[in-house]
Amino acid sequence: MKFICEGLDLSEAVLKVVKACAVRTTVPVMECIKISAVNDTLTLTATDGEITIQKKIKAEILEEGDICVPGRYFSDFIKKLESVQLTIYVENGKMDIAYADSNTSMQVLSADDFPAVDTSVDEDSIVLKTEELKRLINATAFCCASDDSRPILKGCQLVVTGSEISVTALDGFRLATAKGEVISSSKDMEIVCPARTLNEILKMLPSDDGETELKVKRGMLLICVEDTILTSCLYNGDFIKKENIIPKSFLTTVKVERNLLKESIERAAILVRSDKNSLIIMDVTQDKIEVSSNSEIGNVKEPVKAQMEGKDLKIAMNSKFITEAINALKEDEIVLSFNNQVQPFICQNEQNKDVLYLILPVRTGNNA
Amino acid sequence: MKFICEGLDLSEAVLKVVKACAVRTTVPVMECIKISAVNDTLTLTATDGEITIQKKIKAEILEEGDICVPGRYFSDFIKKLESVQLTIYVENGKMDIAYADSNTSMQVLSADDFPAVDTSVDEDSIVLKTEELKRLINATAFCCASDDSRPILKGCQLVVTGSEISVTALDGFRLATAKGEVISSSKDMEIVCPARTLNEILKMLPSDDGETELKVKRGMLLICVEDTILTSCLYNGDFIKKENIIPKSFLTTVKVERNLLKESIERAAILVRSDKNSLIIMDVTQDKIEVSSNSEIGNVKEPVKAQMEGKDLKIAMNSKFITEAINALKEDEIVLSFNNQVQPFICQNEQNKDVLYLILPVRTGNNA
Repeated sequence: MKFICEGLDLSEAVLKVVKACAVRTTVPVMECIKISAVNDTLTLTATDGEITIQKKIKAEILEEGDICVPGRYFSDFIKKLESVQLTIYVENGKMDIAYADSNTSMQVLSADDFPAVDTSVDEDSIVLKTEELKRLINATAFCCASDDSRPILKGCQLVVTGSEISVTALDGFRLATAKGEVISSSKDMEIVCPARTLNEILKMLPSDDGETELKVKRGMLLICVEDTILTSCLYNGDFIKKENIIPKSFLTTVKVERNLLKESIERAAILVRSDKNSLIIMDVTQDKIEVSSNSEIGNVKEPVKAQMEGKDLKIAMNSKFITEAINALKEDEIVLSFNNQVQPFICQNEQNKDVLYLILPVRTGNNA
Repeated sequence: MKFICEGLDLSEAVLKVVKACAVRTTVPVMECIKISAVNDTLTLTATDGEITIQKKIKAEILEEGDICVPGRYFSDFIKKLESVQLTIYVENGKMDIAYADSNTSMQVLSADDFPAVDTSVDEDSIVLKTEELKRLINATAFCCASDDSRPILKGCQLVVTGSEISVTALDGFRLATAKGEVISSSKDMEIVCPARTLNEILKMLPSDDGETELKVKRGMLLICVEDTILTSCLYNGDFIKKENIIPKSFLTTVKVERNLLKESIERAAILVRSDKNSLIIMDVTQDKIEVSSNSEIGNVKEPVKAQMEGKDLKIAMNSKFITEAINALKEDEIVLSFNNQVQPFICQNEQNKDVLYLILPVRTGNNA
């Protein structure tokens, strides 16, 4: 293999694909970027077994071939050669990188051991406005589980029904669900996509008001943004039916100014931040929510003006979950709806109910 | 104790002093901020035993007194109350913080247990241009030792002789020394100041072209910037005499463009970054420095144009030390001066020799 290219072109491409390189693995080839030189095109591919990123660039190919280079070393090295032209050739199991009068080489692995990558994912298709896709990911993915105890909870469920899409994430303590619109879809479908994949997609998406297509085929997802292709495994298995856990009616509903509540909770959370659940308590009465917390450092008790309908309620919760839900809501006024101190409660915008957060309260001995 | 003050005033003051609170200690009072209310002034003080920071602000004092509050909890809490007026009073071992209709309290400790703090450090004095002090600290403090094996090496030596000041730092593998001018000093002196103190001072110093006074008294240093007083212990003991270790003559002197050398070393360092010494080799000949590195990942060999006088030399060094020295130099052209592959070598600007970096090479079996 031998080719000539501009340092800047190669660097930009390498920095995009290197994100898919495995980080700590016993299989060295998974930490590599595969470089294929065919016709006038270099194809760079990296995969960690779950996510694959591939990018093609033009180059002057003097000899075709393919090879694997250590991903992070190669990308950091090429990043420092953006202003020069590079001549790269592989000989005797080494890659020579020539620029100016230098004489630099890097160990390479055979491309034969690199996992096969399928980029022919094109059975089904969902097209959304790019901004809508971003909104749906931002509203939900942070509620996915981060540990491996129930792997399917590390993904977001995407359900397409007609022109509607709903995205749901849950981690066993809270749930986020957001509704949106698709521009078109080849059929109704239900997939569970890893949150990491969605977060990588978020970073790839351009900031324009265009459209984005998600392609789906037998357990795989593909997205293509400006010559960069990302494919990802989807998760198999039964996702929890959100209809079964979101209460249909509520005994206590309270409307409150989002920022006032948020600031009170943040102050109350400071004193309990080293406690395991970082527990805060809301005491909801006619015209206020009293936010309080207690620890050996001290205690906070702040009334927040609110309009309540229904029964008084005292309920304890993890301050992180409620803070993240409030931060993800957008309107000035939000509504919290409760049944009692042990059943999950929900937070929504006052007007636009497209997004819903459900949080499981924390049971305490105190809140009678 | 009882006082009324603006959240913003208290927050700004607390954020300044909290930096001196001890982080992990078995003595809870060392993690506290001491608040003293006398006449119309609040004095906030924190100390970790080495550095003390004190700041005074005006407040409406209704009842004098003093007390200690947990530093980081208090500062994070007050930071979230910048827009309101606070009424703070201490009763029954608790501090009540009243704002709006809230009812918040924090555990406090008696001020009796807080270490005595001496802010009457005024025996001797060194006055420098503020920019000159910053330059001297930036040029040297990064070369101080960071481990505790020889505590005095965690400090910079400041030597004042007439109108000249020289600042020296070393960690056993490299040395930095910078010369500068003082505007005035009460006498010639020699002190060793902790690098942490100098780095805190750097953060406090205003960005104007004024003057700064360092006050010194029996093992203590004091600096006052805009009502914030910082005092610090100085280190006792014999500091290495730099004259004894900086070679007086050199067999090989090489002049090189700073950026070219820096970029070559950075590339060479990438391939050896997981090795212990992150070793690079310079092969200095008539018209170039050949920078090279070797690891199981690959090897780099780059010629850098240079003008050498004296004997050819091949020398190995830690890439971190040489990179940090080159970064700290300012001129486009720099000069490296060597004797042989085992004696320390020096790096300086080509013109202005006020700053000098000395680096111990690494002995290898290879560089014959």
